[in-house]
Amino acid sequence: MPHAIDPDFAIRVRESFERQNVMHLIRATLPVVEPGRAEIHLPHWEGVEQQHGFVHGGVVGTIADSAAGYAAMSIVPDNASVLTVEYKMNLMAPADGEKLIARGEVIRPGRTLIVTKAEVFAVKDGKETLCALMQQTIMVMHGKTEK
Amino acid sequence: MPHAIDPDFAIRVRESFERQNVMHLIRATLPVVEPGRAEIHLPHWEGVEQQHGFVHGGVVGTIADSAAGYAAMSIVPDNASVLTVEYKMNLMAPADGEKLIARGEVIRPGRTLIVTKAEVFAVKDGKETLCALMQQTIMVMHGKTEK
Amino acid sequence: MPHAIDPDFAIRVRESFERQNVMHLIRATLPVVEPGRAEIHLPHWEGVEQQHGFVHGGVVGTIADSAAGYAAMSIVPDNASVLTVEYKMNLMAPADGEKLIARGEVIRPGRTLIVTKAEVFAVKDGKETLCALMQQTIMVMHGKTEK
Amino acid sequence: MPHAIDPDFAIRVRESFERQNVMHLIRATLPVVEPGRAEIHLPHWEGVEQQHGFVHGGVVGTIADSAAGYAAMSIVPDNASVLTVEYKMNLMAPADGEKLIARGEVIRPGRTLIVTKAEVFAVKDGKETLCALMQQTIMVMHGKTEK
Repeated sequence: MPHAIDPDFAIRVRESFERQNVMHLIRATLPVVEPGRAEIHLPHWEGVEQQHGFVHGGVVGTIADSAAGYAAMSIVPDNASVLTVEYKMNLMAPADGEKLIARGEVIRPGRTLIVTKAEVFAVKDGKETLCALMQQTIMVMHGKTEK
Repeated sequence: MPHAIDPDFAIRVRESFERQNVMHLIRATLPVVEPGRAEIHLPHWEGVEQQHGFVHGGVVGTIADSAAGYAAMSIVPDNASVLTVEYKMNLMAPADGEKLIARGEVIRPGRTLIVTKAEVFAVKDGKETLCALMQQTIMVMHGKTEK
Repeated sequence: MPHAIDPDFAIRVRESFERQNVMHLIRATLPVVEPGRAEIHLPHWEGVEQQHGFVHGGVVGTIADSAAGYAAMSIVPDNASVLTVEYKMNLMAPADGEKLIARGEVIRPGRTLIVTKAEVFAVKDGKETLCALMQQTIMVMHGKTEK
Repeated sequence: MPHAIDPDFAIRVRESFERQNVMHLIRATLPVVEPGRAEIHLPHWEGVEQQHGFVHGGVVGTIADSAAGYAAMSIVPDNASVLTVEYKMNLMAPADGEKLIARGEVIRPGRTLIVTKAEVFAVKDGKETLCALMQQTIMVMHGKTEK
């Protein structure tokens, strides 16, 4: 597991999450932040649905992108911030259930670029189904804090 | 330019868009639907922002995914629906400005799979800047209408 | 682990590999075929190098694409064949060492589409380093055998 | 069209291509190098075939990756080199014909990262068919020449 250089990484990540208005709009939460890992939860509610009543793929992408981005942010120095360069996501099953869990993880740390992945699970009747898999490239902006 | 088999393709696409709750949540509109092309507009408002005050990359992905998906939907038969299999998006500049325009386009039509692209432009002081480029694979579900 | 429907899947996969001239050209071998998994090995030799003396990223992609494609082929019926729809690959470290190992794996089986991944490791002095990560979509062609 | 900072960009790109052994192995050539654009040609010969007698998708990826990479290299300073961070490619039609043409192009220049695309056409009886579309991220290594 990657090492967190900044002992206060979790505070820094949570404060960033709080500043992301869109997370409040879609009602997402960030219950888990560990070195090289982060987890975003999203309740299934009508506002985030697509035309079939499942959670919209773009919303699935939003929480996958952020979970993996925060996994990356957890391992950078306290005077650095992170940017998504690109991501690729396969939608493998309908995002059907009471809630979604996006689990982001650092695959390859680096000074300038960090490669991550995220898995998104739909939780229905307590059972998790893998509904999306994402692979992402993150850029580290040294000397640029978020605030 | 691809041909639309269903003369009422634009009605079908617009009705589908109306049923996507998340489009209302983020305040997106669908002003353009043509055979093999669709355009989604998004005003920049505080609810869709990330921590730096730009539009969140996941929201950029949401409108790119839908614009390209509706471009694909415009060319399928009236008894078929479409699903996003996967997409890959590069975020190339901050989504900064008064509004975003996502332009989706069919690159390669097919009976089962359709390959599309979307470009997302940030409009600031009337000037468009390309801020994201997406490449996407769509699956056609024959005999499965949306409603 | 996915189930192999065809008891002779390994024979079918190995015969397909033998017919891929490019595998002979680059001197790749297929030492492992299991249900939902396949492994391609490539010795590092001068013919597959890029300008820095590492194995070319396109060759890394070739063995990753085929290892994951054969992982998918191992689980389809004996009267079906497979096609690569698309793949996305991050090159994370130079392909430096005596040989490369591409490990392909089925992530999500499906009747029409199969989602896979491949990891490519560079082996140097007996030590494996992850140098590439690929995510891929495979299409199943039912009723179309390869020969 | 992007500007070439180094007036000798074409010499630098061609020398790099010559040092890529794998290009000789597959018999690829680089007939076009312009600021922000490069074109690689590949004759269809038995050594690069997959099991159906078409050019292998990995070889298609190899020339797409290199054509886009050299498009990027054409616009960087003479004391910089380029690396592929990642690419995503859709294979849209069999690579069937007498030869393939991969056309790489810079989409978004940048100091550290360059976003590119490549289209690969199969030429059969003189007619070009788009058989693959690639989107790629390139990293610029300043102060690191290739030789």
